[in-house]
Amino acid sequence: MQRRTTPDTGRRSEASRRAILDAAFALAGEVGYAKLSIEGIAARAGVGKQTIYRWWPSKGAVLFDAVLSLTEGREGAEGMALPDTGDLEADLKLVLRATVDEFADPAYDRPLRALSIEITNDPALAALYAERLEGPMNELKKARLRAAQEAGQLPADLDLDVAVDLIWSPLLSRWLHRSGPLTHAYADAVVETALRGIYAR
Amino acid sequence: MQRRTTPDTGRRSEASRRAILDAAFALAGEVGYAKLSIEGIAARAGVGKQTIYRWWPSKGAVLFDAVLSLTEGREGAEGMALPDTGDLEADLKLVLRATVDEFADPAYDRPLRALSIEITNDPALAALYAERLEGPMNELKKARLRAAQEAGQLPADLDLDVAVDLIWSPLLSRWLHRSGPLTHAYADAVVETALRGIYAR
Repeated sequence: MQRRTTPDTGRRSEASRRAILDAAFALAGEVGYAKLSIEGIAARAGVGKQTIYRWWPSKGAVLFDAVLSLTEGREGAEGMALPDTGDLEADLKLVLRATVDEFADPAYDRPLRALSIEITNDPALAALYAERLEGPMNELKKARLRAAQEAGQLPADLDLDVAVDLIWSPLLSRWLHRSGPLTHAYADAVVETALRGIYAR
Repeated sequence: MQRRTTPDTGRRSEASRRAILDAAFALAGEVGYAKLSIEGIAARAGVGKQTIYRWWPSKGAVLFDAVLSLTEGREGAEGMALPDTGDLEADLKLVLRATVDEFADPAYDRPLRALSIEITNDPALAALYAERLEGPMNELKKARLRAAQEAGQLPADLDLDVAVDLIWSPLLSRWLHRSGPLTHAYADAVVETALRGIYAR
């Protein structure tokens, strides 16, 4: 975003930016992405359309920043760390159950689904998403697995990227393609099978 | 599709249907889904627009049937069975490497990506896809795992749906969100880790 020279204008700009992002996220949840429009976001945020177009080229770009600001709002990476009680399996189940709950909530499902479609469609947005959102999230996931490695609970030569995909992809795929029920029981089964393996289950 | 009473008309209809599906798949691969149009499909197939609209309500519906006809063309479920050499790990690697190759080919990547977006967006289409394409594909995958169960290579109480998701979701997610390199080495690592588990890897 652009910053002006006087503090007052800067504060007003920041307030407008915040209002626009909140409006975009809320509207995407209420009306869905197809009916989301710059006009609608502007009306909801109480700003002019040109204010939005000054900072973002498209509704997809606004929504992207709105989703990004969800994580930024939670006091940085510190506040976002995965739980670590020492029991990896229990901690992962807690996290995946929370993801199931999030996907079941229309206020999250719709904006996140819209963002996923944009990313699937647009390699440039996918790269930006990987760099600014998925990358940092994956680092948090890998940090939790690394702690388990250091505690001797996971092999030292584990490929952490593959492990993260194995744990988190089934929920993502099932959610996107609506290919089966997304329940806490499913989240638990995924964690158990990923950790112990299909051979051993 | 509608069928007329005389055999001649039936044959002509079938030829038109085939030409429309081939044109839709090829065009989606060449120009991408955003630029795919009923007009373009009609021109490529050598039929009138109204012929397409008689059978399909939208370009998404045409593309759906085009992807579906890919599998129907391969002499039914018999011809589609997963390889079974008795070595489950080797067989799964072969299948996942072939999927990696398919995703890397623009002629497949673009139509399949477009279809995935439609499914993500449209619950009704997702249900149809689950019933007519993903369901039958999953049955083939589960049949291979069941054979391994019967050979005593997998536990009798294995949840086959969870196992299928664990093996196939990582590739799907990585492809859709372009979140990392999709290589044969990655396919191999996913199979190995899914079978043996993150604990054991």
